[in-house]
Amino acid sequence: MRNLKFVIEYNGADFFGWQRQEGKRTVQGELERAFFELTKEKVIFEGSGRTDKGVHAFGQVASVKTDAKIPLKNLKLTFNNLLPTDIRIVRVENAPDDFHARFSAKRKTYLYIAKVGGERSAIDCKTVGFYPYKVDFEKMKNASLQLVGKHNFKAFSAADTSVKNFEREIFDVKLSRRGQLIKFEISGNGFLYNMVRIIVGSLLDIGRGKLDENSIKNAFKNCNRNTLGKTMEPNGLYLKSVKYL
Amino acid sequence: MRNLKFVIEYNGADFFGWQRQEGKRTVQGELERAFFELTKEKVIFEGSGRTDKGVHAFGQVASVKTDAKIPLKNLKLTFNNLLPTDIRIVRVENAPDDFHARFSAKRKTYLYIAKVGGERSAIDCKTVGFYPYKVDFEKMKNASLQLVGKHNFKAFSAADTSVKNFEREIFDVKLSRRGQLIKFEISGNGFLYNMVRIIVGSLLDIGRGKLDENSIKNAFKNCNRNTLGKTMEPNGLYLKSVKYL
Repeated sequence: MRNLKFVIEYNGADFFGWQRQEGKRTVQGELERAFFELTKEKVIFEGSGRTDKGVHAFGQVASVKTDAKIPLKNLKLTFNNLLPTDIRIVRVENAPDDFHARFSAKRKTYLYIAKVGGERSAIDCKTVGFYPYKVDFEKMKNASLQLVGKHNFKAFSAADTSVKNFEREIFDVKLSRRGQLIKFEISGNGFLYNMVRIIVGSLLDIGRGKLDENSIKNAFKNCNRNTLGKTMEPNGLYLKSVKYL
Repeated sequence: MRNLKFVIEYNGADFFGWQRQEGKRTVQGELERAFFELTKEKVIFEGSGRTDKGVHAFGQVASVKTDAKIPLKNLKLTFNNLLPTDIRIVRVENAPDDFHARFSAKRKTYLYIAKVGGERSAIDCKTVGFYPYKVDFEKMKNASLQLVGKHNFKAFSAADTSVKNFEREIFDVKLSRRGQLIKFEISGNGFLYNMVRIIVGSLLDIGRGKLDENSIKNAFKNCNRNTLGKTMEPNGLYLKSVKYL
């Protein structure tokens, strides 16, 4: 039995998210279907985490236990030929027996791309989130520094979560701007449900002046979702990379 | 009765092209449905031309004869609210009675974006065409100059066309490169079916060395589709603008 590590890119626009669901087109479902077509073996693609409907990935990672003997190089090529063009295997390699894409993950990086001000673009409607107001970019950059470190992120998670431990560590936050597009790159040891989309919505509301510039710092204490900004739409969100070590 | 000129942007990924078709999601169909919802009036959106399944537009133009009295500014706003996010009205203005988006058009510009070499990208699978080989960019640029002027473009049209007159004038061709992406911008007085996609496929084949560098010039004489390159996929193609006057 081999343990394989897949690095996977996908455009989430036409998927009901990562997780396999009966009768719905999902990334995990397509991967497992194509792998069966290739090897006649039923395997599980254990992802580093789920992504929602509409969310994209440059570097989702999945681990797969398989008896298939096909060489790595051929595997990538033939597997990609069986996959739809909105999923691509970027890399596949042998992993140690105890490697697990979710449990072994040490650092995840998400990218969010937002168009700020002006009007929605039709061309980018599936790949860029839209925020209809003008913002003070320097104010947002300053506020984003409050995120770095170990904090209680309860206020930054979807209300209906079943998670018990809300402590997460953010390693790094980078904001960059080009014209009306703002990119948010956020690395941490793990993320709660909707956490990145709530962070981005809150930073934008701070930049607009709708939220106080200490809202993030304050939310670590008040733990109240309602003191933060709205959850940005999924289509601007990308899982950029997952690191192990 | 007013005659309105609409400038329309759309992402063609989820449409069966521009033209209204019973039971299929098309750009014209969605525009006419939303306009009816707004005004209770059945109108026709006369496009400057059809675009195929998967082809996008930044600046498609349509003319519409209507009795609706709604002011232009409100019209754009309320109409966009009724349209799906993959269609946006960029501009709407009053046009002279005799203005017709197709018959009055003087100059059309298409953009094609191709990823050249390397591997397909999943994220861009709906918005960039893929060409798997390395190319000599300068060779392509030189060959593209042969397109400019009035020529018989019979060899550059889909074989099953019912068109009788194949003379078209190309005003301008611009090629630019950034990393693995090559952009082709082509302006002319009109285009045959698949013409832009065949031009791009042929220039790429010239750049790869599969076609002779005089293939374009020669095709104006031999009028033989088989002497040119393949028809590139629709998803890299954008109708950029239509000019009148």
